[in-house]
Amino acid sequence: MPDYSTRTAHILSRIHELAAISEDATGATVTRRFGTPAFLKGRDLVQGWFEAAGLETRLDGIGNLRGRLASRRPRAKTFVLASHIDTVVNAGKYDGPLGVLMGLDLVESIIQQGLDLPFHLELIAFSDEEGVRFHITYLGSKVVTGAFDPALLQRIDADGITLAQAIDEMGGNTAQLAADALPPTEWLGYFELHIEQGPVLWESGVPVALVTAIAGQQRMELTWTGMAGHAGTVPMPMRQDALAAASEFVLATEAFALAHGHGLVATVGQLRIPYSASNVIPGQVIHSFDLRSPDADQLAAAYAGIQTQAEALAARRGVGLTWQLVQATAPVQCDHELNRLLGQAIAAGGYEVVGLVSGAGHDAVPASAVAPATMAFIRCYKGISHNPLENVEAADVAAAMAVAERFLLELKDAHN
Amino acid sequence: MPDYSTRTAHILSRIHELAAISEDATGATVTRRFGTPAFLKGRDLVQGWFEAAGLETRLDGIGNLRGRLASRRPRAKTFVLASHIDTVVNAGKYDGPLGVLMGLDLVESIIQQGLDLPFHLELIAFSDEEGVRFHITYLGSKVVTGAFDPALLQRIDADGITLAQAIDEMGGNTAQLAADALPPTEWLGYFELHIEQGPVLWESGVPVALVTAIAGQQRMELTWTGMAGHAGTVPMPMRQDALAAASEFVLATEAFALAHGHGLVATVGQLRIPYSASNVIPGQVIHSFDLRSPDADQLAAAYAGIQTQAEALAARRGVGLTWQLVQATAPVQCDHELNRLLGQAIAAGGYEVVGLVSGAGHDAVPASAVAPATMAFIRCYKGISHNPLENVEAADVAAAMAVAERFLLELKDAHN
Repeated sequence: MPDYSTRTAHILSRIHELAAISEDATGATVTRRFGTPAFLKGRDLVQGWFEAAGLETRLDGIGNLRGRLASRRPRAKTFVLASHIDTVVNAGKYDGPLGVLMGLDLVESIIQQGLDLPFHLELIAFSDEEGVRFHITYLGSKVVTGAFDPALLQRIDADGITLAQAIDEMGGNTAQLAADALPPTEWLGYFELHIEQGPVLWESGVPVALVTAIAGQQRMELTWTGMAGHAGTVPMPMRQDALAAASEFVLATEAFALAHGHGLVATVGQLRIPYSASNVIPGQVIHSFDLRSPDADQLAAAYAGIQTQAEALAARRGVGLTWQLVQATAPVQCDHELNRLLGQAIAAGGYEVVGLVSGAGHDAVPASAVAPATMAFIRCYKGISHNPLENVEAADVAAAMAVAERFLLELKDAHN
Repeated sequence: MPDYSTRTAHILSRIHELAAISEDATGATVTRRFGTPAFLKGRDLVQGWFEAAGLETRLDGIGNLRGRLASRRPRAKTFVLASHIDTVVNAGKYDGPLGVLMGLDLVESIIQQGLDLPFHLELIAFSDEEGVRFHITYLGSKVVTGAFDPALLQRIDADGITLAQAIDEMGGNTAQLAADALPPTEWLGYFELHIEQGPVLWESGVPVALVTAIAGQQRMELTWTGMAGHAGTVPMPMRQDALAAASEFVLATEAFALAHGHGLVATVGQLRIPYSASNVIPGQVIHSFDLRSPDADQLAAAYAGIQTQAEALAARRGVGLTWQLVQATAPVQCDHELNRLLGQAIAAGGYEVVGLVSGAGHDAVPASAVAPATMAFIRCYKGISHNPLENVEAADVAAAMAVAERFLLELKDAHN
């Protein structure tokens, strides 16, 4: 029986070391957005660990850190073990890095045991999953799965820097992105360990669960255009206040999602008022809108229903509305056979086999388009994530390590 | 009969020259916030004009541009003619500069005519009326009227720079602020020319009006604190979304002001979500709240009523609320005797004598605490202000010049 508590302590110590690297110079928060100096410094640290483990390590064109443990078998396929090392702004320590560093520990164990797997094992730390900087998620895994659209290179961040420039500045290579994809014929499968980021395991007292599906997601940018004016002199009935319109939208979407239930969630996370001042009536408001559901039909109906409401309220208030769909991903079903093996490993650990739908998107979404893919979720404190309060119990990590190692050995046996 | 159309063309040409100086390097917008390089460059231009007119010109400790035309009379008091040359972000060209440059033209005319006034005339271009940078209005006129509270020197702008530092950096002098006040015994009166910034004159077809009162104003900063979380994984009923709470506040205040009428206006002009991302439920929202009424009792009742509503909605949503009063100014009545003279000058020009309540705050508010004070409003295009669409008809400026010059001559006669 491996000593999972010592291995977990080592994993968590690496988590804390990585979390100390942040764009925020005070160190009070964890922020490592794609391509920033803090991101690169954090990746350097993890790259050193990959190399020390004996992995054949390289950085690909979009800055993914890729470590390969080659099988001696002829015509072996590749099984990918991955998560991401970019973060949201003011993030927790575990969202992403936990999966990478648990994966690294699993690979170190395989190397130390001298196991020859019947498949190549590729451990990947994706460079951009959160999509905070360019408002497009999965940039890293899109490259690895061959789904990267070169048109994305022209997208700009908040400072007007294009994705192509950002890749150049971080020492990547935009010319190499297509060649960095693993061809579909080489994939054996994809597996990711991740904190749940939701409250189900916390409330049920189960440390680890398999993921049956990942919710579909639509991400929009809305612009409301009214008429700027002096806050003291324009009578209330004559106003075209863009923020009042946006506020009505926020409440309408909240009411819509509450009324429809069944996993539908709607969020306005970012909002800005260009040229704002406390004594100026907002003339324009630009905000994000994130809509998710595990049910493709419900997602499509909610999108249409909320857009209709938005247009009606814009007309009623006499303000303009631009509704731009930024990103859409369909709900994804995880692989049945991988989940059968994962369920066996969970049951063998003595835990109830819980199947969860993920409300969060993950790199398993693009992976599922080219390979059998699944994930295991690890219980996190109160389900809190994307928040400095994000936390994970060491005992739960140890439980998940035992499950994941058993899963990999079952996978080895299944392909022997 | 002076040639007011030629003089107006000269005034407007100076307005356009000054408006070309902006923080925005593209020149597409007009922005000159207190103490910025653009503000200083704009003030240099106006200072050159003051000096060329023959005014005894100086910069005071807080950066007001002050030009003096001394009377030869012993024990003469000082009549102040003033407006401001700072602007909001993405401003129009006329709010502030029009009053300063009309005043300069009036002084030039007095000098050219060789008139000896029975009072010193001080023309002031205030350095900060809008309060955009430090969220406190009237910094310039507070110094001149002796109402400046030295505690304000510790306020910080969005970059963490204190007002004291900003004054040092612009070559001002914080040690001199008290000495820069005109003692109450030296004031004869205060007069300001300004665009209306509201729609009444536009709709009534009158070019110029006197101001009977200035609305009282309360400026607050509200902070809503909920719980940040992942936009995909926290079920709708479990959320404590700070933006949903703020949105409900925006709509509640709009409904309150619409229902109560009688000049009550309520505006949320600035709003920010710290650490925001499209896939993060807002954990905190900070926004301004501006409330105004010409009626002191209505203003107090609205303040209390809206605060009660805000606390109730915070409690219902399970979010925290911090309500901070940033600034409060009581409604101000303009001076009856100055308005009698101004009304005579308007009637002599052949115009209907309209008395307006100003919904916007002005430097006449602090001035009225130490001296008889009033203002004249000039019609502006559709009442639009704090907006690049702000515009003024040359014929209306010419009409207002004739009224203002007649008013000054009446004032001269009244004190001879």
